[in-house]
Amino acid sequence: MNSLVVLVCLESPHAFWQLSDEHVKTLRTAFPSVHFRIATNDTITEYLPNAQVYFGWRFQPGWFRVAPSLAWIASPAAGTDHLPVAEAQMAGLTVTRSYGFHGPPMAEHAMGLILGFSRGLFTSSRLQRTQRWWKDDLAEEFFDLAGATMAIVGCGSIGAHLARAARSFGMHVLGVRRKPPATGSGPDGITWMRTDDILKAVGSADVVVDLLPATDATRRFFDREVFAGFKPGSLFVNLGRASTVDQTALLEALDTGRLRGAALDVTNPRPLPMGHPLRWHPRVVLSPKSAAFSHTYMDDAVAFFADNLRRYLAEAPLNGMVTAPTAPTSATGG
Amino acid sequence: MNSLVVLVCLESPHAFWQLSDEHVKTLRTAFPSVHFRIATNDTITEYLPNAQVYFGWRFQPGWFRVAPSLAWIASPAAGTDHLPVAEAQMAGLTVTRSYGFHGPPMAEHAMGLILGFSRGLFTSSRLQRTQRWWKDDLAEEFFDLAGATMAIVGCGSIGAHLARAARSFGMHVLGVRRKPPATGSGPDGITWMRTDDILKAVGSADVVVDLLPATDATRRFFDREVFAGFKPGSLFVNLGRASTVDQTALLEALDTGRLRGAALDVTNPRPLPMGHPLRWHPRVVLSPKSAAFSHTYMDDAVAFFADNLRRYLAEAPLNGMVTAPTAPTSATGG
Repeated sequence: MNSLVVLVCLESPHAFWQLSDEHVKTLRTAFPSVHFRIATNDTITEYLPNAQVYFGWRFQPGWFRVAPSLAWIASPAAGTDHLPVAEAQMAGLTVTRSYGFHGPPMAEHAMGLILGFSRGLFTSSRLQRTQRWWKDDLAEEFFDLAGATMAIVGCGSIGAHLARAARSFGMHVLGVRRKPPATGSGPDGITWMRTDDILKAVGSADVVVDLLPATDATRRFFDREVFAGFKPGSLFVNLGRASTVDQTALLEALDTGRLRGAALDVTNPRPLPMGHPLRWHPRVVLSPKSAAFSHTYMDDAVAFFADNLRRYLAEAPLNGMVTAPTAPTSATGG
Repeated sequence: MNSLVVLVCLESPHAFWQLSDEHVKTLRTAFPSVHFRIATNDTITEYLPNAQVYFGWRFQPGWFRVAPSLAWIASPAAGTDHLPVAEAQMAGLTVTRSYGFHGPPMAEHAMGLILGFSRGLFTSSRLQRTQRWWKDDLAEEFFDLAGATMAIVGCGSIGAHLARAARSFGMHVLGVRRKPPATGSGPDGITWMRTDDILKAVGSADVVVDLLPATDATRRFFDREVFAGFKPGSLFVNLGRASTVDQTALLEALDTGRLRGAALDVTNPRPLPMGHPLRWHPRVVLSPKSAAFSHTYMDDAVAFFADNLRRYLAEAPLNGMVTAPTAPTSATGG
C-alpha cells in the first residue's frame, strides 16, 4: 500500500503565518508513515497530482483538474469564503476550516478597539499633538465598560472568548446566533438571543461586535434597518466579514449621530480607496485585517491539523467540516 | 449637644466628579441628625469656621486658620499628594483618602492603552489616512498579550483589579510592592515581588504598569538604572504619579529602542509644553489624567464617605487613613 501524501503550502509575508522547519519536523515525527511535501505557491501544481491531502491557505479552482487523488482540503483559517467550497463539494472532496485558537488574539483586538473608543484613547493620541490640554474633550467622550452591554453577533467559539474578556470588565454580554445553545449548555454568562431578534439585541447594546461569517444569508445583514435600531451612541465593531455590512448605511448611521463610532478590521473593497469616507471619518478606526494576528498562530494551526490528520488516518470524523456556503453551515463566527 | 456639621465642596468641570442634588439627598436621608453644608470654591471659607468634617477635592493650607473645629478631612480621591497631609497631621486632624472604586475605570484605561500598543491600533488609526495598506507595518509591531507578563509596580487595590483584567487575557502578573501580602492572602493569581527586586521584575516583564503613589520614597523611582533593566521591547505605562518617573531617562530608553513604547496618563509638567518630545515621540501615547474617569465615580465616592461617616459617628476606625507622605504609608497604589 502506498503511504499517504500530504501537500503543505503555507506561504505568507508574515512569519507567524508561515510553516517553519520546526513545524515540518513536528509533523514528520508525529506521522512517520506519511509523506509530507512542502510546496511554494510556484511549485504547488507540480506536487498536486500525487497528493491525497492538501493543507494550505489558498486553493485555486483550476487546481482541481491537476489533483485527481485529492480527498481533503484543510485550511488553517477560520473562514472559508476564500476557498472553492462548492466546487470541492461537487467533486466529492472534504474541506475543513480551523478553530479554537482565533479567540485569544481576536478578543484582544476587539477589546483594544472598544477600549480605544470607550476611554477616548484614539482621540487622545491625536489631540496630544494639537491641543494644549484635552481633558474636557475626553470627559465628553468616554463611557464605562463596567455595567455596559455588548452584543456579539455570530457568537461562536471566538465570541465565547470575547465574552469572557468583556465579562472580566463587568460588561453584560448578549450572544446572538441562528441557533442559540440550549439553556445550560454553551459558555457561561452569555444571554442568548436568536438572529431573528437582532433589533432587540442591537437596541439594548452599547457595543455591537460583528463576527458573522460570509454566507448568502449574512450578506448586508447590517443594513439601514438594523443600524436604525441601534441604541443611540453605541459603537459598532466588525471583525467578521465586510460583506455582512452595508457600508453606505453604516456611514449614514455615523453621520446622523446614531453611532458613536465604528471600528472595522474588514472593509469592501480591501484596501479602501485613499479618499474613501470610512478612512477619513473622525469616528472610524480601521485595522488592516489584523484581528487574528498572533505569534502562535501557526503552532496552533499545525496542532489543529495534526489532530485532524490523526482522525483522518483513523477514519474518524474530522473537526471543522465545511459545506458549501449557500447552505446553512456550522461556520458561524467560530 | 450640637449636631455634627459636615462641609461638602465637590466642584469639578465634569459632571461625574460633582456632587448632585441626588447625592445630597442621599446623605441627608442617611444621616438625619447631621448638618450638611454644601459650599462652592468661593463660599468655602465662610462655612469652614463651624465645620467638624470636610469632604472635598481640595484643601488649601491657609484654610486651617479659619477651621478651628475641623477634625477630619475626607477626600474622594485615591491619591493625597495634593492635600496638606503633614500640616493636618501636625494640627491633629485626620485625613482619609478613598479607594475600592478606582479599580474598574483604571483597569479599563490601562488595558486600553496596552492593547492599543499590543495590537498596533494607535499606529493603525494614524496609517489609515496616509498609507494604502499597512498590514505589514502592524505585523512587525504587534505582540500577543496571551502568555506575556505584566509587572504592576505599586500593586494595591487598583492593581488587583488590573491584574484580574490582565489574567483574563492570559497574561502572567507580577505584583510589586514594598510589603507583599503573606503567601495565601492577597488577590489570586499574582506573583508577588518586593520593591527591592524591581530590576528582576522589570527584566522579565513585557508590560510594566506604574501605579506608585507620590511619596519621597517613590520620587524618580523609574530612573536610568531601572529603565536600563527593562526587558528589550517592553512597554511602560504610567497611571500613577509623574513624580515617580525620570522623564529624561524615559526618553532615552525610548530612543535607544529599549522600550517599545510608553503610555502616560501623568506627566511633569501637566500639561506638557506643546513642543515637548514626549508629545511628539512616535511611540508615546498620552492621556490627560483621565484614567479614573467614570460616570459612577461620585456615586461610589459618596458611598465610601457615607460608610466612613457612619464609622466616625460610632467612633470606629476610619477607612483610608493617611499619614504624612514622608512616612511609609499604606497609600500604595491603592
